[in-house]
This record gives sequence, structure tokens and C-alpha cells, in this order.
Amino acid sequence: MSVDPVALTQDLIREASVTPDSAGAVALVQRVLEQAGFACTRTDRNGIPNLYARFGTASPVLGFNGHVDVVPVGDPADWTGDPFGAEIRDGTLYGRGACDMKSGVAAYIAAAVEAAAACPGSLVLTITGDEEGDGVDGTAAILDWMASNGERMDACLVGEPTCPDQMGEMVKIGRRGSMTAWAKATGRQGHSAYPHRALNPIHAMVAYLARLTGKPLDGGTAHFDPSTLQVTGFDTGNAANNVIPATTRAMVNIRFNDDHGSAGLSDWLRAEAATVTADTGVTFDLDIKVSGESFVTPPGPLTDLVQQAVAAETGRTPVLSTSGGTSDARFIKDHCPVIEVGLVGSTMHQVDERVEVAHIHQLTAIYRRIIAGYFA
Amino acid sequence: MSVDPVALTQDLIREASVTPDSAGAVALVQRVLEQAGFACTRTDRNGIPNLYARFGTASPVLGFNGHVDVVPVGDPADWTGDPFGAEIRDGTLYGRGACDMKSGVAAYIAAAVEAAAACPGSLVLTITGDEEGDGVDGTAAILDWMASNGERMDACLVGEPTCPDQMGEMVKIGRRGSMTAWAKATGRQGHSAYPHRALNPIHAMVAYLARLTGKPLDGGTAHFDPSTLQVTGFDTGNAANNVIPATTRAMVNIRFNDDHGSAGLSDWLRAEAATVTADTGVTFDLDIKVSGESFVTPPGPLTDLVQQAVAAETGRTPVLSTSGGTSDARFIKDHCPVIEVGLVGSTMHQVDERVEVAHIHQLTAIYRRIIAGYFA
Ligand SMILES: [Zn+2]
Ligand SMILES: [Zn+2]
Repeated sequence: MSVDPVALTQDLIREASVTPDSAGAVALVQRVLEQAGFACTRTDRNGIPNLYARFGTASPVLGFNGHVDVVPVGDPADWTGDPFGAEIRDGTLYGRGACDMKSGVAAYIAAAVEAAAACPGSLVLTITGDEEGDGVDGTAAILDWMASNGERMDACLVGEPTCPDQMGEMVKIGRRGSMTAWAKATGRQGHSAYPHRALNPIHAMVAYLARLTGKPLDGGTAHFDPSTLQVTGFDTGNAANNVIPATTRAMVNIRFNDDHGSAGLSDWLRAEAATVTADTGVTFDLDIKVSGESFVTPPGPLTDLVQQAVAAETGRTPVLSTSGGTSDARFIKDHCPVIEVGLVGSTMHQVDERVEVAHIHQLTAIYRRIIAGYFA
Repeated sequence: MSVDPVALTQDLIREASVTPDSAGAVALVQRVLEQAGFACTRTDRNGIPNLYARFGTASPVLGFNGHVDVVPVGDPADWTGDPFGAEIRDGTLYGRGACDMKSGVAAYIAAAVEAAAACPGSLVLTITGDEEGDGVDGTAAILDWMASNGERMDACLVGEPTCPDQMGEMVKIGRRGSMTAWAKATGRQGHSAYPHRALNPIHAMVAYLARLTGKPLDGGTAHFDPSTLQVTGFDTGNAANNVIPATTRAMVNIRFNDDHGSAGLSDWLRAEAATVTADTGVTFDLDIKVSGESFVTPPGPLTDLVQQAVAAETGRTPVLSTSGGTSDARFIKDHCPVIEVGLVGSTMHQVDERVEVAHIHQLTAIYRRIIAGYFA
């Protein structure tokens, strides 16, 4: 049996699987993989559809991961065609999910189905219906089910789009961590003509944020750009220009590399607040939420294999990058080495999301080479 | 003819003259002064009732100024009696306006009526129905009318409450200036994971406000406490923790002494913004509103006269202060020397506003001594 990755991408786009309505798209890939002889298990959790598909019982186990949910299309009238029409015009396939990442899922399904029968180890495909939403019951649920059932991967490739502009220019070997702190400063209300009787929380918050933004968190590491800290909100809600308010709030988002962990950064955020409290008397409440820790799959035989496969198909040796936001690789990294390798993502989440048809074939060939090399 | 200042205060309190509904209270003092032989002219402007009352035609001219409008009572149920009942309990008179400042107006009317016939110069009473509101058509309108009609005062006493706790402890010889700047910072929106593609206006605003609050404006002057700058608002309105917003706003209130003028401070606010723009690329729009410049009536024969009168009646030599917010003295200072001397203001604008009856008599006696001394 063989699967046409372009036709499968089109079929998936026509399933309008905007998070969390992705059951139809997951069922579609399940049908394809069952027909190809993969043992399929649904590992749904809290209404999120998830698929675990395996071919073979031997080791080693090479895994693939991806999602078939998509972000909303916005106003369909802004698109030049039906966002779920999957039209091909001049060699380009249009539609929501065309690059993020129904094409990536279709490409690794096509490559895996083709390679399965002759594979000396096992191939595992993990496909979720929620990566664009909270993601807590998506890939994480599949991995939890695997751990509970003695299933594992020795290495995993994620099919997210990884190239900024040119096919083959970049793969991702890690991600920065991400965390957000919501800070509330409490002083004492008063009249601005008598500031000595009040305690201005805005001044204290300005001092706090000046400390946080005053110097770089680091200068970057071997595999990472410098960590960044951005104040994304500051709100007081006081309309009276002659009133010193009692409280104010700010929001700080940190993207951190492997020089840091969220625990150490949380300690630092609290220590800086304590310093400002000692200076001013204004107290701080910090509510900190960690989206993920930083991680990296260091260069080695696996990254070499991926780089060689990409170079053979595209003529470009991809950069080993750790840039960008978060992905489900943040869950997989706790189970096995993980590398993201995929298409050009420049139109992801945008109007007229699209991918060149030729790139879907290239990516399928890259995955085919990686599978062959991994089991060689 | 003689006027009982306590009874007149009660009559005025019973006119519930919450700004701008003060026509009844102004009409009441007009009737009293006309009966006492004062030449009364209404100098109403834009619906605000104002009274100019003069006794005599000779020089010098000693003036008094005050307002008969009051702030709202809030929930009347919070009061221990009718806020407009003017009840006297245990020697204390209760009601909205009891200390701010129907009692002050009644006291100088009583003193002026008593002294008028024998006065070798002239007495001028300026009474407005709007000091607690915008005030632009109140005392300012009376002064404008006076200038247009060749009327003037050689010195003026304002009957606002000036004592924090004890009768006689403080008079005011000036006021700080007040101004407010509304600052808008404009950067470039972006994703917090890619801050190099965005331009964070919150970071620039924090840097700007850190500059403004970083060092004192001055160390105080001969007659003034140090100037103060308070950030009273900072608002972004961005709920997404991973989005760097395009704009943010802050509000800064400055109370400044005679080391500064609003023009120089405005220049400074703009220059600091320009420095931050040069550092960051974030641009600032500043909207500056000046409520009043600082002013002072320096110590001299007039302040000596006032201090001696207060000391003779209360046993306390009052401090010559320039503390507190603004008052209509900010308009009068452009016409003649002005001093504020009045009652204990600790309950002004509050529930159960009140004044000791004995203090109204004391204040009347103080004004009597000042009139006598001024024309001696
Ligand atoms: Zn994706
Ligand atoms: Zn007042």
C-alpha cells in the first residue's frame, strides 16, 4: 500500500478541524493507518482525540509526532479561496493547516507506510487533535498512556514547520522555556498633593520592572540565543489624576534558554520584588505560570542523520536552531531525544496559509531517508 | 446692625448648595450684606452665581474671599444627623460646609458688617458659588469683572479652613503649583517570543518614569516643601501575555514649589521623553494640563498682622505654610497679596463634617482684629 501525501493533506484540510473540533481529522488518519496495518489505539483524554499507531514490535523504535487541529481562519472573506477547500493553484496548495501542519503529518504517514513492512525495528506515529489549544490533553496524554503501557520511542521527529523562508534551511533541536509572572503591587491610597501620607505602588512597580529589564538575562549559550524578558502588560485602572492608587498590576513574559530553569527564575523574580519591598514598603504578590522548561537535543548522530537527509533532498544543510515559541516537543523531550523538521512556516496562522506541493514531496523524501538511515 | 456668625453658618448649611446648585446660598449672603449697607453686584458667569460686595469708597481696600458651594454628602445614612440640618450638639455644629467653608464666610461677614461703618478705607467681600467644581467661572469671574470695572483689593484674606488639628496653628501664605501630564508611548506590536521584531512601549515607559521619579525635583525652598511628582496611572489594556502591545499610557501629577514654573517642567518632561526615544525608538505623545502655578505671599507686615491676630485670640502663633492642594488663592495672587486663614479642616469633605461653635466665634474675632490692624 502507498499513500499520496498531497492527496492526504487535501483530505485533512477538508476536515475543518479547528481546535477542539478535530475528531474527524484524527479519525481520518486512523483509517489510513489501520488500512496500512498499523496497530491503532485511541488515547483520548478530556474530550481531546489522540491516536497512537505502531507498526512492528522490535526495537529500536523511531517515533513521529504531530497535530491535525488548526487555528481559526478569521474572516473567510479575507481568503482568496475557501480556507477548507484545499485548492491547488500554480503548484501551491492553499488552506488552513496547509503548512501547520497537516502536510507534515501526511508526509510522515506516507513515508512510514512505505517503510513499515521492511523496517527491522518499529515505527510509532503519535497524532493529537489539540496542539493549538491548551495542549495539556494532547501529546501529553499520548505520552502518559505510553508510559503506563510500557510503550516508548528511542527518538522522535516532530513534523512542525521549521523553515523561515527556504525549504531545508532549518531544523529545531530544542526550544526555549516560557513562563509568565502576573505581579500585583500594593501600597496605600492617597491624594497626590500629600504623597508622604500614601505609598505609591506604581513607583514601586516601575522600580521593579526597571530592575527586571535593566540588564540582559544572559548572553546566549552554545545552542541558544540570549533569554528575553518582556513586560507585556501594566495596568492600574485609576482615572483620577490626583489620586495615588492602592494597587497596580503588571505582566512579564520570559523566554529562557538552558542557562536557566523556571524555578531559579521564579526565585529571582521574588528576590527582586523583596528588594523593592525593602526599599519602598510596597508589597508584591506574584502569580507565576510556567509553560515549559527549555530543552535541547545536543548535536550528535541523530542530528547528523537529519541534517544529511535534508541536505540530500534540498541541497541545504539545515541550521540546528532553538528559536521560536513552544511546541509539543516540550513534552516529548522528557521521554526521548526529539528533533523538529518540517516545511516553510511563513504563512502559518495567517490568511491564505499555503505550501508548495513540491515541498510536501521533498519532506516525504526527507522522512524516508531519515527512517532508512535510522534503521541502517 | 450685627450678624451672628453661628446663626448665619446654620442658615447657609440649610441651603443645600452642592456645586453647582449654589444660587440660594449666594442669594442669602447677598440679602444679609445688602441689609448691612454693602453695595452688592452679581458677577455671575456661565450660570455660576458670584457676589461682589463693597462697603466704602476710600483706599486702602481690604478684601475677603470664600465660597458657599459644598461637595456632595455621599450616603446621608452614613451621617449621624441630617447633613443639611445644621444641628448643634455638645457645642459642635454639624453639616456639609460646616468647616469648608460656610462658617468662614459667615465669620468674615460678621466681622466686616461690624467694622464697616467706622472703616477709614473700604471692605470688599468676594463670594462665589463654585470653588469645589471647575472654579473657572467663580472667583476668577469676580476678579475679571473687578479688573474690567476698575475695582481692586490691596490685600485679600481667604476664609478656607487652614488648621490641620488645632485652632490657630496654621495659615497659608501660598500654594504649590499643580500640573498633570498624560503620556502615550508608541512602539511596535509583536510576539513576546520574538522581541527583536517588536518595540516594547512598556519598557520605554518604565525607563521614562524611572527617569522622572529617579531623583527629587528639588530640596524645598525658603517657604515650600520639596516639589513632588507622582505617577497616578499606568495602563496598557493588553490581556495576552505573549503579545507585546503597540502602545501604553501613563499619567503623572506634579506639585511644584517656587523653584519651578509649569513651562520649565513641561520642557523637562518633553526632554526626558526625547532622551528615551533616542535610546529606544519608542515615541511619546505628551498632553500637559496646568492647574495653577506656585505662588507665595512672602513674610512681611501683612503676615505679621495675621499672625498677631491669630495669636491674640488662640494663644498660638500660626505657622506660615504653603502645603496642601489648590484653592481660589491661585487666582487672587495675580491681583494682590493673599493669605488664607481659617478653621480646623480635619472633617472637610467627610461624613459628619463639623466645627466647634467656639471656633466660629474665635475666627470672627481674628478677622475683627485683622481689619482693625489693617486700617490702624
Ligand atoms: Zn503547529
Ligand atoms: Zn473650600
